[in-house]
Amino acid sequence: MSTPDPLPAAAPALSRQSDRTLAEQLAAHYAERIRQRLMPPGTRLPSVREGARRHGLSPSTVVAAYDRMLAGGLIEARRQRGFFVRQAATEARSVPPEGGATPPRPLPLSATTLIRGMFQPPGALPMPGLGTLPADWLDLPLLAGALHKVSRSSAFADCSARYGEPAGDARLRRALAQRLAEFGVPASPLQIVTTVGATQALDVVTRTLLRSGDAVLVDEPGWAVEYARLAALGMRVLPVPRGDEGPDLAVMQRLIDAHRPRLYVTVSVLHNPTGASLSLHRAHQLLRLAEAQDLHIVEDDTYAHLAGPHLPRLAALDGLQRTFYISGFSKILAPAWRVGYLAAPEAWVDRLVDTKLLSTLTTPVLSERALAHCLEQGLLRRHAERVTQRLDAARARTVLAAQSQGFRFAAPPRGLFGWIDTGCDTERLAGAMLDQGWLIAPGALFHATHRPTTLMRVNFATTQDAAFWQVLRNTCGHISAR
Amino acid sequence: MSTPDPLPAAAPALSRQSDRTLAEQLAAHYAERIRQRLMPPGTRLPSVREGARRHGLSPSTVVAAYDRMLAGGLIEARRQRGFFVRQAATEARSVPPEGGATPPRPLPLSATTLIRGMFQPPGALPMPGLGTLPADWLDLPLLAGALHKVSRSSAFADCSARYGEPAGDARLRRALAQRLAEFGVPASPLQIVTTVGATQALDVVTRTLLRSGDAVLVDEPGWAVEYARLAALGMRVLPVPRGDEGPDLAVMQRLIDAHRPRLYVTVSVLHNPTGASLSLHRAHQLLRLAEAQDLHIVEDDTYAHLAGPHLPRLAALDGLQRTFYISGFSKILAPAWRVGYLAAPEAWVDRLVDTKLLSTLTTPVLSERALAHCLEQGLLRRHAERVTQRLDAARARTVLAAQSQGFRFAAPPRGLFGWIDTGCDTERLAGAMLDQGWLIAPGALFHATHRPTTLMRVNFATTQDAAFWQVLRNTCGHISAR
Repeated sequence: MSTPDPLPAAAPALSRQSDRTLAEQLAAHYAERIRQRLMPPGTRLPSVREGARRHGLSPSTVVAAYDRMLAGGLIEARRQRGFFVRQAATEARSVPPEGGATPPRPLPLSATTLIRGMFQPPGALPMPGLGTLPADWLDLPLLAGALHKVSRSSAFADCSARYGEPAGDARLRRALAQRLAEFGVPASPLQIVTTVGATQALDVVTRTLLRSGDAVLVDEPGWAVEYARLAALGMRVLPVPRGDEGPDLAVMQRLIDAHRPRLYVTVSVLHNPTGASLSLHRAHQLLRLAEAQDLHIVEDDTYAHLAGPHLPRLAALDGLQRTFYISGFSKILAPAWRVGYLAAPEAWVDRLVDTKLLSTLTTPVLSERALAHCLEQGLLRRHAERVTQRLDAARARTVLAAQSQGFRFAAPPRGLFGWIDTGCDTERLAGAMLDQGWLIAPGALFHATHRPTTLMRVNFATTQDAAFWQVLRNTCGHISAR
Repeated sequence: MSTPDPLPAAAPALSRQSDRTLAEQLAAHYAERIRQRLMPPGTRLPSVREGARRHGLSPSTVVAAYDRMLAGGLIEARRQRGFFVRQAATEARSVPPEGGATPPRPLPLSATTLIRGMFQPPGALPMPGLGTLPADWLDLPLLAGALHKVSRSSAFADCSARYGEPAGDARLRRALAQRLAEFGVPASPLQIVTTVGATQALDVVTRTLLRSGDAVLVDEPGWAVEYARLAALGMRVLPVPRGDEGPDLAVMQRLIDAHRPRLYVTVSVLHNPTGASLSLHRAHQLLRLAEAQDLHIVEDDTYAHLAGPHLPRLAALDGLQRTFYISGFSKILAPAWRVGYLAAPEAWVDRLVDTKLLSTLTTPVLSERALAHCLEQGLLRRHAERVTQRLDAARARTVLAAQSQGFRFAAPPRGLFGWIDTGCDTERLAGAMLDQGWLIAPGALFHATHRPTTLMRVNFATTQDAAFWQVLRNTCGHISAR
């Protein structure tokens, strides 16, 4: 009873009437205290039995809460000693240590924090660093209806009891082929392979095209998880500067001459983090270079549904000859359903399907069939129009709020992400903001090699509140004054 | 109108009242004709427009039928020329050509045929070569009920609109921890990571533990897809003879001395294809060897639900210290839901979760939550008991039918698979049987290096019919007489 007490004297108000489970509420309570430094790294959490007693919960609820925090990287279990707040829970506050005692990890530490943050139970404050739409922007009744339709139908046996087709649900592939035709991408259903989110599509394509040790070109700035994935597969990652029109082709040519890469991975439309889209002219030049050098291209069109069909896709110019087109539904409809796909040159389809078989066998049919229904009925199109309108309004408000605090956009504001020059070191800024409960995405996350930067990415959907920009401005001021 | 007609004069009887879609029926009709050699390799199929006219179907139905056959590897598309019956459709009839004009493929050709056969629309005849239970042995109402329960609840938002937890649904992981405790495997929910089927679990563990060029020990006979997966990742695959008690430890020791492998991948219980389970004594010796040589073990317990908890698991003996336990639900409940999992030593969990994030981000939450419900309510246990009883009866009938035709079991009949010595070359036998519409699994599929063998694997659930054994006996006779 005399052990130091990491909890407030008053137990948190947990409600059985809440939308969230008691375990989620308890986990959120601890998470908030850890972020606020009321429970610094190394603090021991109460035992399960003790936690259950204090909060009037069953032990299994406390286990579930700890479990969520463990999965989120906030706490760690030490064998026979209990649960402790992790160092990693606040690690974004400083430059990650190089080569410590911990085993090597494929993700840079700070990327891990951001990525794991994506999976935190929703907290009281929005997280401007995250790359997804808020859950309440999505259309749950639409999803529930589509699922209900599929699971009631006689096709339910196909969706459950038998493996799906190796390339993915035929109905979804047909609907996707029609959608791609609207962009001018000439994919037959036979050239489309469904995957577990766009992530698996990227994984399958690179595993099929490349071998360990191969060189691969990527955009910089770009997405740390993609760099980490390629590095974990043993690839040599070659960053190409990405400007407003597209990649710097002179740099690309020099890298090609020096390293003979076989592949270039790019987000051509609504690029993450700058929001820029490839110009027609640069797209044409890029394809000419790729043809001359026998370079393949992976076009990651993750933000397709926020972009509108008028923006040029490389796969359309190229006619899917050397471009592998990748997209999915996580940014518009159902992140947790994990449905993505690729459209590939005909000659590669069989080998891509084989790689898919070796990595997950087939993909879940039920969600693919339900999404096919959403596409066929035009439900997704109408939902995407509503989201895009809402995002336009959010972006306008965010830009005003940011500019009113003197922040400058390093790229014209478009799509989901703003790329902002804060004028102060964003890794230090991220640490100081985390102390105040805000998870932001410092520019270092978008560079293939670690370097100090004053840039950061914001999500327009979650940064409309002037209070955030006020806090950011003040925190910037404190950092610069030190 | 004077083009050679690959179709019979009378169009097949397609019924709108059937359980199967018109496209499935049309695909099954062609598949049957291809198998029967009425449409030999190279035969051109009618154009979509022509096919639609002949069968009184919409063009999209014909496209769907061709699509299924393409996905199943029966036909191929040639640009601007149409669809043709593939050589591969009948390739199991002879030794696969070495180094032909086609690009290298990660799966041996004959394995491809079998694997793609797993995904064929169900035909008129059962396929004794396949490794899954027939769809009508599974419990669809149970699945539909669980799914309905989850999608109706307030947790539906968690299952759709937000990424799931990186390690997988917490409720499922808790239920799995309880199940594993019944085998004596001491996994906390924090040591469990859900995956897209057991296949992704195998992929994630090997990608985390090994690098390209590493040596890895496998059982022989064993499963060709696992050999192919390891080879595609650049591993050196070292086969260890698998006897009735377990692996040959003297051979394993020699391979360890020569190649310093870091990992041994094994199906310890109801081994595929022999049905054998590791003895307690061999398990103990194996673990002592692994400890002495710092070898990790992947225990693939895919057939867990058919086995009963009394059979010893390596992960139980070892206390999950150096064993990675893998299982899933594809062999008992819902192949197309693609839910599997791994239980790992505590120190490895974070890195395994990172590899999972890089390969598919998270896994679909909806099916995981529904399976958690099935486990929590004891529904899966009762279903597994019913299936096991039915399988026992099927096995008894199959053994009688096989023996009455003079076939000998090379291993005592147990579990789902029988390992049979036919007395004749099973690759030639497989070709001749395929001509008669039966897909069987020749012994060559279960060897890491190609060699002639008289062994074959049968699925006890689908070989109860005396007619199959009669055909097999006659076909064997013809082959031996030639």
